[in-house]
Amino acid sequence: MNRYSLALLASVAAAAFSAAPAAAAPGVDAKARETAFDALISSADQQRWLEDMSSAPNHVGSPHDKANAEMQLALFKQWGWDAHIERFDVLYPTPISTNFEMVAPTRVTLGGQEPAIAQDPTSSRTAGALPPYVAYQGDGDVTAPVVYVNYGLPADYDALEQRGISVKGKIILARYGGGWRGLKPRLAQEHGAVGCLIYSDPADDSFAEADPYPLGGGRPEHGVQRGSVQDMTTYPGDPLTPGVGATPSAHRLTRQTATTILKIPALPISYADAGQLIARLDGPLVTGKARGGLGMAYHWGGSDAVKVHLAVKSDWSLKPIYDVIAVMKGSTYPDQWIVRGNHHDGWVFGASDPLTGQVALMSEAKALGQLARQGWRPARTIVYASWDGEEPGLLGSTEWAEEHADELKRKALLYINTDNNGRGYLEAEGSHELQSFVNQAGRDVTDPQAGVPTVERSRAAILANHYLAPDSVPDARFDAAKAGGDLPLGPLGSGSDYTAFLQHLGIASLNIGFGGEDQSSGSYHSIYDSYYHVTHFDDPGLAYGAALSKVVGRLVLRAADGPRVPAHYGDFASTVARYVTEVEKLDADQREKDRALADARREGYFKLSASPTDPLAAPRDRGVTPLLDMLPLDNAADHLKRAASAADAMLARAETLPPATRARIDAGLADIDQLLLDPAGLPRRPWFKNLIYAPGTLTGYGAKTLPGVREAIEQRRFDDARTYIVRTAAVIEAYAARLDALVALSRGTA
Amino acid sequence: MNRYSLALLASVAAAAFSAAPAAAAPGVDAKARETAFDALISSADQQRWLEDMSSAPNHVGSPHDKANAEMQLALFKQWGWDAHIERFDVLYPTPISTNFEMVAPTRVTLGGQEPAIAQDPTSSRTAGALPPYVAYQGDGDVTAPVVYVNYGLPADYDALEQRGISVKGKIILARYGGGWRGLKPRLAQEHGAVGCLIYSDPADDSFAEADPYPLGGGRPEHGVQRGSVQDMTTYPGDPLTPGVGATPSAHRLTRQTATTILKIPALPISYADAGQLIARLDGPLVTGKARGGLGMAYHWGGSDAVKVHLAVKSDWSLKPIYDVIAVMKGSTYPDQWIVRGNHHDGWVFGASDPLTGQVALMSEAKALGQLARQGWRPARTIVYASWDGEEPGLLGSTEWAEEHADELKRKALLYINTDNNGRGYLEAEGSHELQSFVNQAGRDVTDPQAGVPTVERSRAAILANHYLAPDSVPDARFDAAKAGGDLPLGPLGSGSDYTAFLQHLGIASLNIGFGGEDQSSGSYHSIYDSYYHVTHFDDPGLAYGAALSKVVGRLVLRAADGPRVPAHYGDFASTVARYVTEVEKLDADQREKDRALADARREGYFKLSASPTDPLAAPRDRGVTPLLDMLPLDNAADHLKRAASAADAMLARAETLPPATRARIDAGLADIDQLLLDPAGLPRRPWFKNLIYAPGTLTGYGAKTLPGVREAIEQRRFDDARTYIVRTAAVIEAYAARLDALVALSRGTA
Repeated sequence: MNRYSLALLASVAAAAFSAAPAAAAPGVDAKARETAFDALISSADQQRWLEDMSSAPNHVGSPHDKANAEMQLALFKQWGWDAHIERFDVLYPTPISTNFEMVAPTRVTLGGQEPAIAQDPTSSRTAGALPPYVAYQGDGDVTAPVVYVNYGLPADYDALEQRGISVKGKIILARYGGGWRGLKPRLAQEHGAVGCLIYSDPADDSFAEADPYPLGGGRPEHGVQRGSVQDMTTYPGDPLTPGVGATPSAHRLTRQTATTILKIPALPISYADAGQLIARLDGPLVTGKARGGLGMAYHWGGSDAVKVHLAVKSDWSLKPIYDVIAVMKGSTYPDQWIVRGNHHDGWVFGASDPLTGQVALMSEAKALGQLARQGWRPARTIVYASWDGEEPGLLGSTEWAEEHADELKRKALLYINTDNNGRGYLEAEGSHELQSFVNQAGRDVTDPQAGVPTVERSRAAILANHYLAPDSVPDARFDAAKAGGDLPLGPLGSGSDYTAFLQHLGIASLNIGFGGEDQSSGSYHSIYDSYYHVTHFDDPGLAYGAALSKVVGRLVLRAADGPRVPAHYGDFASTVARYVTEVEKLDADQREKDRALADARREGYFKLSASPTDPLAAPRDRGVTPLLDMLPLDNAADHLKRAASAADAMLARAETLPPATRARIDAGLADIDQLLLDPAGLPRRPWFKNLIYAPGTLTGYGAKTLPGVREAIEQRRFDDARTYIVRTAAVIEAYAARLDALVALSRGTA
Repeated sequence: MNRYSLALLASVAAAAFSAAPAAAAPGVDAKARETAFDALISSADQQRWLEDMSSAPNHVGSPHDKANAEMQLALFKQWGWDAHIERFDVLYPTPISTNFEMVAPTRVTLGGQEPAIAQDPTSSRTAGALPPYVAYQGDGDVTAPVVYVNYGLPADYDALEQRGISVKGKIILARYGGGWRGLKPRLAQEHGAVGCLIYSDPADDSFAEADPYPLGGGRPEHGVQRGSVQDMTTYPGDPLTPGVGATPSAHRLTRQTATTILKIPALPISYADAGQLIARLDGPLVTGKARGGLGMAYHWGGSDAVKVHLAVKSDWSLKPIYDVIAVMKGSTYPDQWIVRGNHHDGWVFGASDPLTGQVALMSEAKALGQLARQGWRPARTIVYASWDGEEPGLLGSTEWAEEHADELKRKALLYINTDNNGRGYLEAEGSHELQSFVNQAGRDVTDPQAGVPTVERSRAAILANHYLAPDSVPDARFDAAKAGGDLPLGPLGSGSDYTAFLQHLGIASLNIGFGGEDQSSGSYHSIYDSYYHVTHFDDPGLAYGAALSKVVGRLVLRAADGPRVPAHYGDFASTVARYVTEVEKLDADQREKDRALADARREGYFKLSASPTDPLAAPRDRGVTPLLDMLPLDNAADHLKRAASAADAMLARAETLPPATRARIDAGLADIDQLLLDPAGLPRRPWFKNLIYAPGTLTGYGAKTLPGVREAIEQRRFDDARTYIVRTAAVIEAYAARLDALVALSRGTA
């Protein structure tokens, strides 16, 4: 998959000037070890592995997917790790047939595999490759008129409703973007559509932003984005085994009772094919931001003028997935785990996604193995994981995390994820108490292009962009960059393998990569996501692959060998306080907007100003958002701020405490993030238990913070909002109380 | 031409709830007269005249242009007006040849007349019509590489400079929009380009907003926008006779010494032709808002990959223009004139622009003539003017105003302009003391579509749009609509015939029309601006033509017959105070932006964050804007506010004053707007003497208020800014002092 957010990570000044206390810098021995580690990182290694692993289709169930797992297993062992393959058997639909044709006004066969491009040698090796399709759509065979729905998100259905256009019994044509792909067929299905086509509009990932491949890295006219449409905002992983590992003995739902599988057929298509339909649609003109970038008029359609036949049939048998797990046992704290993962399965060749990240992970593992051979052992246990089946639904990481849930909750201190990586700026999201930890590592690695610390380059980009286009930079990021403190970590939503760790198990997590100057969005999930594309347009020479290994390697070494995982609870507290302010503002703003709508409807503004040629009905009256009692959240945020401040002060002098006290404090911190879980989980999706971070049910990959409250307001479930204000306040209070208790312990007043 | 601004005019509540005192409503007799006037307005008349006048090309110098003038003269006389034709002889270039071909990478002949469209009967009658061209370009014959320059405005040249691309010796390809057409070749010339092509990108006036003609009213792929590129921001009218009427005896400059004529050849082209070039340009990709809506990658070009041959030659002889002037003498104040104008020349058939406005004016004249036949005579003299030669450069109105300058300054109280008109919302700009006058007239006319007062519909549109897209509605407009007071008038820039009256002579002026729901931008200045287009897409049935006659007719009747032209000086004062706040904010914001740039350059943010594939140089250092002493403006604005408040209070009870005092007060108000003139005019353009309103030198049609100060800051002429702060404060003080004096007169304390 892909990182949803392009949030940049940067620190903005030398540590001495940092607004927040810097994370503990490594000692002299540790520094020497990091220097030795850097010397063992090789872009040449990464290029070799990348070319090999992306030489054939490597999707779940393909021979090369299994071969890649076995090759990695052999390498891990060769590098001295205690490694094994862990297999799960998951429901994974493999397409048998994907038919797509226009049947009116003329009959034209469309769809099918993407064509080879001469310059790209692997693009012709598509024997055994998946055709363009989306996983976990419903099998079906439908013929129906087409309705253009823009991005196919809730606001688009409002726009259709205002024009009196229904998708009931129709096939929707949605463009990629605006929100996660899986929402498009799900919302279509909820609105009564019988089929769904999703296409890559050139306004979003082709010539509007990059020259089409192979002149540039942008999406060519016949390029198609595959992907999963599994409803992973309800739960990710094997649809048949929510909450438990997909082992032979697991209790399994049936395909019919699994709620994360769609009922209607859906296919992704190219903009060349979409243009054939759009050019013929009739009905009102699509104007403004709802139209895409094809050089023609867009119409909403919905009449019989354009009809499509869409038929998709899959093999729904269970398939094996192969996680490669490699362990280096800790010398001092073997039961404290630092877990580090990336996935190895792709949609076709998967060179950028996921292998640019995966080869960085392999470099780290090789270097750590070498250090171990030279006599070093980590204080804590390091677990390296190469996940399978991420693309269809975070299968490998979720099943493994579910299977080992109890042990992970007892032992795992930290999960560090990467996925596709490209040239550009260091980007990171994660648990906010890890902000200074990540910034410090980013400060200590040199950007391969600019020759300055990676964070200097990120900071420069934020400040340059703010000068050129102030609205493009969020205030919090600009303020942090300008003030010279650490840059904030973005919150984690979903879209990669940290989800089960953070949001199901409550393990502090990070997701890290470089990007912003690569053109991988143009090859994303297509046959053109190839070694050729990566080495020409995404990370020539894999210089940023090496930089990623160095940043993540530092995080692993420092977490594994330091006195504890460096955390700064004040960063978590101030960020939570900001989120509380945001949901309060959301409540007030939504109420104001509702009142304005009620006024405008009562006064007839929409009717009076309606256009004679494109009359719009008034937006639907959805009632007025109540002002909600947010005091429990205010109290909790305030408590957290005070507790975090005392805890940070205590930890700054922790090394002066008696070892037994320190051990008890560290034990109390080890699982503190699990206090953010509520056993009941979020409304309508109990698998997601973290009340601070979740993927949005209407954003998919994008994070919603304080999700129980925020989404309830947005979705007008005000009783849920009231309930989750209290529940969310309770987990924050519990977290703060734990910090209070540990401070009391340090003072001997517990 | 066209109104630049789509500023809506609306009042927002019954007069009783109006925040500002309502303009004096007409008495019982006057009301009956307005009812009689309305009954004489006929959409059928307007349709007949429109079809006839747009039946053949009617540009300056064409037989039908002269015939239309003579036809109108006959009608005015028939309706009882004292009418004549006033002729001027002006430099007007008529194209002899316009050649445009691509010569590399392949030779393709492009350009030429627009093709006929079967449904539109006049589109095939192009014998004698002007080909696509722009007036007052320089003759020339050049072959050179092409550079795409987006809108071709200053920010675009900054973007080119940051990429190291020069237009020197090249032909620029600019799209219409972002600013006035004439700026594009002027800036190209200043940057060393040897030729200029301007095309209509579909993102701006075709399928992005309307279905292409004839399915809708949007610009078809071969449609071309003609226009003038005369530098009318320096002075409009005949380039050879600035400041004086182009009569036989006038002193004339030579074509070489006239500063408003370009030196380089320029042609407007269609997006079909532009696409032929754009598809072949190379160089860096154009991204973001700089690209247009064609379905292809845009590149900046500039290499020898694409070369164009461009050759334009015109007949530069003097041509006659025919203003039709009709007078109805005032019974009580014959030397107080109310002047009302529209133009009658078009670029081809000119059905929408200008004839939709012109036939509304004719309806008014017919109705006023009929009222006069029934025994009514206006108290003041009414002058109806049908201008010729507006399209090439406001020729007819400017020469007439210059020729009669002394008399107009003595006698004219008000100039009311219209131009093209279409269905939609009442829009008005003008002298701000006339705000309540216009609002009151707008309240008294029913919108033909919604059946409510026109201003109710405008108000509804503002508030509906604010709900749907808050950022699309300026705060001042929303606040006024919401508060229930009169809606502000937009300031006048240029682009139609009020310019000489307001900005050269200091006569209070208005420009009024309906629009926002027509599709006339798609036929603008093309052969498709036809009776068919207007009656299908712009104002079917000319219902809004009749509504315009009723609004303007009320203004004329009330101004001609009322105790005085209704003015509310508090509206002027509060608007001027807002403008003063704006220029103060401009100064502070520009300084802040300069400081940020200096910081970013010093710290190397641009260099550090530069992309390896599209490296941008840092924006050019232009120094730091100083904080300017604005106190003279603050003092003047404060003085004006107090004086205006006292004057409004005095005028509210003016009818209780002795007649002789009233007459002296009215005489003092008659020419008060002339106090806003500075004899030296604006920096580098002395013809423009009004220090409150001017067209922007870098916006063309768009207004700049307090232009001597505002443009000097924007253009970094800080000595000019200091000088014009004082000069602008002086004219405001003089205006305020005049009001003070008249109030003193009313008290007998003068």
